[in-house]
Amino acid sequence: MRVLVEISYMGRDYLGFQIQRNGRTIQQQFEKILKRMHKRHVRIHPTSRTDRGVHAYMQYFHFDTELNIEPAQWKYAMNSALPHDIYVKEVQVVNDDFHCRYDCVGKSYRYKVYQGQHRDPFQSGLATYIPYDLDIAAMQRAAQAFVGTYDFTGFCSQKTDVESKVRTLYESKIVETAQGFDYIVTGSGFLYNMVRVLVAFLLQVGQGKKAPEDVRTLLEAKDRNLIPFTAPAEGLYLEHVYLTPDALIEIFGKDIKIHRKKSLQNE
Amino acid sequence: MRVLVEISYMGRDYLGFQIQRNGRTIQQQFEKILKRMHKRHVRIHPTSRTDRGVHAYMQYFHFDTELNIEPAQWKYAMNSALPHDIYVKEVQVVNDDFHCRYDCVGKSYRYKVYQGQHRDPFQSGLATYIPYDLDIAAMQRAAQAFVGTYDFTGFCSQKTDVESKVRTLYESKIVETAQGFDYIVTGSGFLYNMVRVLVAFLLQVGQGKKAPEDVRTLLEAKDRNLIPFTAPAEGLYLEHVYLTPDALIEIFGKDIKIHRKKSLQNE
Repeated sequence: MRVLVEISYMGRDYLGFQIQRNGRTIQQQFEKILKRMHKRHVRIHPTSRTDRGVHAYMQYFHFDTELNIEPAQWKYAMNSALPHDIYVKEVQVVNDDFHCRYDCVGKSYRYKVYQGQHRDPFQSGLATYIPYDLDIAAMQRAAQAFVGTYDFTGFCSQKTDVESKVRTLYESKIVETAQGFDYIVTGSGFLYNMVRVLVAFLLQVGQGKKAPEDVRTLLEAKDRNLIPFTAPAEGLYLEHVYLTPDALIEIFGKDIKIHRKKSLQNE
Repeated sequence: MRVLVEISYMGRDYLGFQIQRNGRTIQQQFEKILKRMHKRHVRIHPTSRTDRGVHAYMQYFHFDTELNIEPAQWKYAMNSALPHDIYVKEVQVVNDDFHCRYDCVGKSYRYKVYQGQHRDPFQSGLATYIPYDLDIAAMQRAAQAFVGTYDFTGFCSQKTDVESKVRTLYESKIVETAQGFDYIVTGSGFLYNMVRVLVAFLLQVGQGKKAPEDVRTLLEAKDRNLIPFTAPAEGLYLEHVYLTPDALIEIFGKDIKIHRKKSLQNE
């Protein structure tokens, strides 16, 4: 039986999602609980392996089990054993061919920035502090220039080792908040560090060091060295996960380009 | 020269204010910085030694120095070296006979409770989760019954080792919030664990296990065993510190009873 679990977590005190030899990770917290319940190791498969310090308002993983436990009981058992910065929102049984990573057709991230004269210790680990003024209108124009299907080689970690770096962004925008702004981006998928590199670039636009018109040139250049920064992890939240094309179409319309990882895998 | 420092901090990742043999404390973070600047140990004296996990929106400490540094420079030097969950708001030079603890005539605490169907991982360490319904009106009546001058022996840790357990509460009230309520209490001073015991009692009133009418009886009984709980530290915030009688009178009126620790010391 395959079980799908929807969770959220504050990533501040974790080395990321993926299990590590040393230190606390989200995967480790769940596999410890599942091991206790199954008396054997049970591997969980997430939609997204969030990095150290990155948060999730919505994240999924699945695992296979022979235990005959109702969804509500799974939820209760896990929440009772989890630390208070991780929470299981929903558990459901899914088809055996469902796969959290391959069925995911889209994700949204939110990056939180707060400004102002003073650093706020209560935002520590939860939002990035930018003490200087920013040209939000220019950042908005730059953000929107990323919407579409592009090769994002110039906007990801050079450690990325995937065949295609072409991704579609369905939305890329700045939303002003009481204390600063959030950058919201939804795409078919994201390369390693991609959101944090996009934010670093947008912050350079906000300071006048880059222009919205540079977006096209930089996408064509495919050279990461032209954007030598990566915004810190603390402001980054995985906000939404789209597990079916319909869910994505419902928000962004039926004319959008859908990337299906499953069919790519079979090619 | 005596220097007075106003700070705020998220206490989540600290063992409390006071220095410990092992582990991170607020005092340790500042004394480490001051030692580096003075090339010798410099002791700091806080208004309040907040417990493990307790937060401060406002807190003061003072220290003596022979260094000729301007207040703005002190602030800059400390903020540059501090972790991001501690922040120096203001630095000023004060008279040599000023003392953070003895001159303090009042303090306000805020205790944050959130309710609702689901635990929120982003409130972890920052507010206390109460999953059950509470009778807020009864809690409000009970809270207000503590305003006045009483012996709080029955409402503090039995480890407390001070001569007098008489304190004056100037305000004690429940304020409803979007997700639950805050308990706000201002007093001449607080005994060890006193706010957390008051909150534990109020939560019992909210559940109908105690009544607002019990307040008077419990104050008179002076028996801590009658309130066998202490609310968790994570919801507790030191919110305001009153360093002069005038500051307290400005808010609560000229007829209030002022407790002066300094004159008590000299008796």
